[in-house]
Amino acid sequence: MTVEIICVGTELLLGNIVNTNAAFLAEKCAALGLSSYFQIVVGDNRERLLQTIKTAVKRADIVLLSGGLGPTGDDLTKDVAAEAFGRRLVEDEKSRRHIEAYFAQRGITPTENNWKQALVPEGAKAIPNKNGTAPGIIMEENGKYAILLPGPPGELKPMFTDSVMPYLRTLEDDVIESVTVKVVDIGESRAETMVLDLMENQSNPTIAPYAKTGEVHFRITARAKNSKEAQDLIAPMAEELKKRFGSHIYTMEEEVTLEAAVAELLAEKNWTIATAESCTGGLLASRLVNVPGVSKVFHAGFVTYADEAKQNLIGVKEETLERFGAVSRETAWEMAVGAAKTAGADVTVSITGIAGPDGGTKEKPVGLVYIGCYVNGQVCVEEYRFIGSRLTIRESVVSAALVLLRKCIIGK
Amino acid sequence: MTVEIICVGTELLLGNIVNTNAAFLAEKCAALGLSSYFQIVVGDNRERLLQTIKTAVKRADIVLLSGGLGPTGDDLTKDVAAEAFGRRLVEDEKSRRHIEAYFAQRGITPTENNWKQALVPEGAKAIPNKNGTAPGIIMEENGKYAILLPGPPGELKPMFTDSVMPYLRTLEDDVIESVTVKVVDIGESRAETMVLDLMENQSNPTIAPYAKTGEVHFRITARAKNSKEAQDLIAPMAEELKKRFGSHIYTMEEEVTLEAAVAELLAEKNWTIATAESCTGGLLASRLVNVPGVSKVFHAGFVTYADEAKQNLIGVKEETLERFGAVSRETAWEMAVGAAKTAGADVTVSITGIAGPDGGTKEKPVGLVYIGCYVNGQVCVEEYRFIGSRLTIRESVVSAALVLLRKCIIGK
Repeated sequence: MTVEIICVGTELLLGNIVNTNAAFLAEKCAALGLSSYFQIVVGDNRERLLQTIKTAVKRADIVLLSGGLGPTGDDLTKDVAAEAFGRRLVEDEKSRRHIEAYFAQRGITPTENNWKQALVPEGAKAIPNKNGTAPGIIMEENGKYAILLPGPPGELKPMFTDSVMPYLRTLEDDVIESVTVKVVDIGESRAETMVLDLMENQSNPTIAPYAKTGEVHFRITARAKNSKEAQDLIAPMAEELKKRFGSHIYTMEEEVTLEAAVAELLAEKNWTIATAESCTGGLLASRLVNVPGVSKVFHAGFVTYADEAKQNLIGVKEETLERFGAVSRETAWEMAVGAAKTAGADVTVSITGIAGPDGGTKEKPVGLVYIGCYVNGQVCVEEYRFIGSRLTIRESVVSAALVLLRKCIIGK
Repeated sequence: MTVEIICVGTELLLGNIVNTNAAFLAEKCAALGLSSYFQIVVGDNRERLLQTIKTAVKRADIVLLSGGLGPTGDDLTKDVAAEAFGRRLVEDEKSRRHIEAYFAQRGITPTENNWKQALVPEGAKAIPNKNGTAPGIIMEENGKYAILLPGPPGELKPMFTDSVMPYLRTLEDDVIESVTVKVVDIGESRAETMVLDLMENQSNPTIAPYAKTGEVHFRITARAKNSKEAQDLIAPMAEELKKRFGSHIYTMEEEVTLEAAVAELLAEKNWTIATAESCTGGLLASRLVNVPGVSKVFHAGFVTYADEAKQNLIGVKEETLERFGAVSRETAWEMAVGAAKTAGADVTVSITGIAGPDGGTKEKPVGLVYIGCYVNGQVCVEEYRFIGSRLTIRESVVSAALVLLRKCIIGK
């Protein structure tokens, strides 16, 4: 079955808020095996909303609408959806009692327009809203479904997960499963070229590449009668990718990030890690610390931005800084070794570079970065050249540092 | 003039990523005075993309497309937009040289499909991409414009701000000017309530609130025959906001971030700063380091995640950790003082808290955070309680730390 997501709200058209509802609904629908070809944002305007719903009903089986269920005059979604399905609005007794209880509990007297929220299109099903007053709505007509959800994510998400997903599951026989293969240290186009033959003429399973900063993810998706059959379709394709990408694959689990994979490697070896960062200014440490439970392996990090900090905190020699400069292979080396000594860590990563926009020279341009990696007494330093804004460069450096760190740990 | 935003990418339809480009472009277009009635997300599919572009061209003057400019087989935007405008693709010499230089700088050999990115629709204008290989494109036909932008936000945002916005300004006679008043330390609803009377019945200038993490931005926008007249419309409104929000306003310049404002305050006083972070793991240091030229004031940061790191690196007493715990007012105090001593800084900020998802107790729940601030021998520590995911909590903590730091520096 196909689904089209329509998010209603002038605040989305003005860019006042980011449309997280669309991403949430899209991900859930994909997991349910529903195909989605369009997402629409439309404002609180009767004519345009009606036109949008009618177009969506023509091209999709299920139309998911979010927003515009509130009590105020510019909340039009219910009226307009009812019109599109040729229904009139009638009061839903249960929804009215829910609204009464909701206000009574808060000691507030509802205003007249609050009762508008108890109206539902005739013959439609009201979905209870545990976190607000507007009920959701499910309407069906000739095999086409309109599902209306409140706009606030705190109301929409639990309503969708608790009530709408179980309902949608009853509509389809097939099961969809997917596996994500995450690859590092290979550029997007090269990685894709390596699987082009698999992607051509694919049907079931399919492979889709996703480029992330410093990574490429391949999602293998299969559709089958049951979960076991879907997994059986995925397995040979996953094996094939393993063969082709080898140790470039750091995980085959959707929720495992590169930093989590690195933390896991360190935990397996019972090694602790410390960081010594200049131009990235703590961004690497902060990515590691975003891994829950990282305290097992990550103990300390140094942000040695000034030369004196490099000397005083992690013992980089003044002579080294003078002779080779702060951005040099030699300084990166001493930072890695010094951080290991000061923090008493088994593994360290050091970063020194020029993130720009100023500070570059002909010999040492903006984007020049040295990353050092110390693993139990062994040190390696690599030179990199990045381009982009200050933030882009710094984010790329952190990804490159995690990739280098992983290579050094697994010994490739 | 009207604009329609089309974001291209199956990853958006699958909910793999949140559509921050749409919000960014919508906000900028609103600031330019362009009206927007629809936003569309469509996948990497030739037929549906063509249909979407044709519909958009019919109902809007300007069609803004993002995504699908990459080198791979499923990057179709340029082909399809050229088809919609009846153009063929020709190689753009400048774009080819840019791609050559981009890869040469990295010592990588481009694959054949990389050259696809040097193609532009005949008669179209290529927009240079400082942060990647895909140029942007501006095409015009009978007063209708198609503007193609790369999907990665790190490429799209600077390209739009630096090249597309100045171009769009030339298309309209009226001048739109806006000023952004950035407010901290007041909740969103309270801040909005404080200007409700100004927002009701507004026409020219208008005020629109934008909620950001830990901040509220008010954009005052005026439309006039020239820049001077627009500024004259804005000035009294800006004055009124100054009166109402006072020292809660940290800047009235669009491009000044909170961390840049804080760095500027420190530079004015000729003070240096060091950070000592536990649960934020370097995120605060990294936000400060993202300010160009911050080396004047920021010298060093400590990520003291483990208890031993708190003791060994910045001299938190073992007794304090044992008696009050790592997440306590007392530890935050000693971290702030210890970091100042170790780094020899005039100002320090310390952060210790429980970011979750584990590690919370009844007395010290997830989200409990202490932030300490040392300013030339004076220390203050504040207690906070945040909710959300590990990352959300950590980002909120960093914003709160910058707000507290600013208050301590300006002495409020």
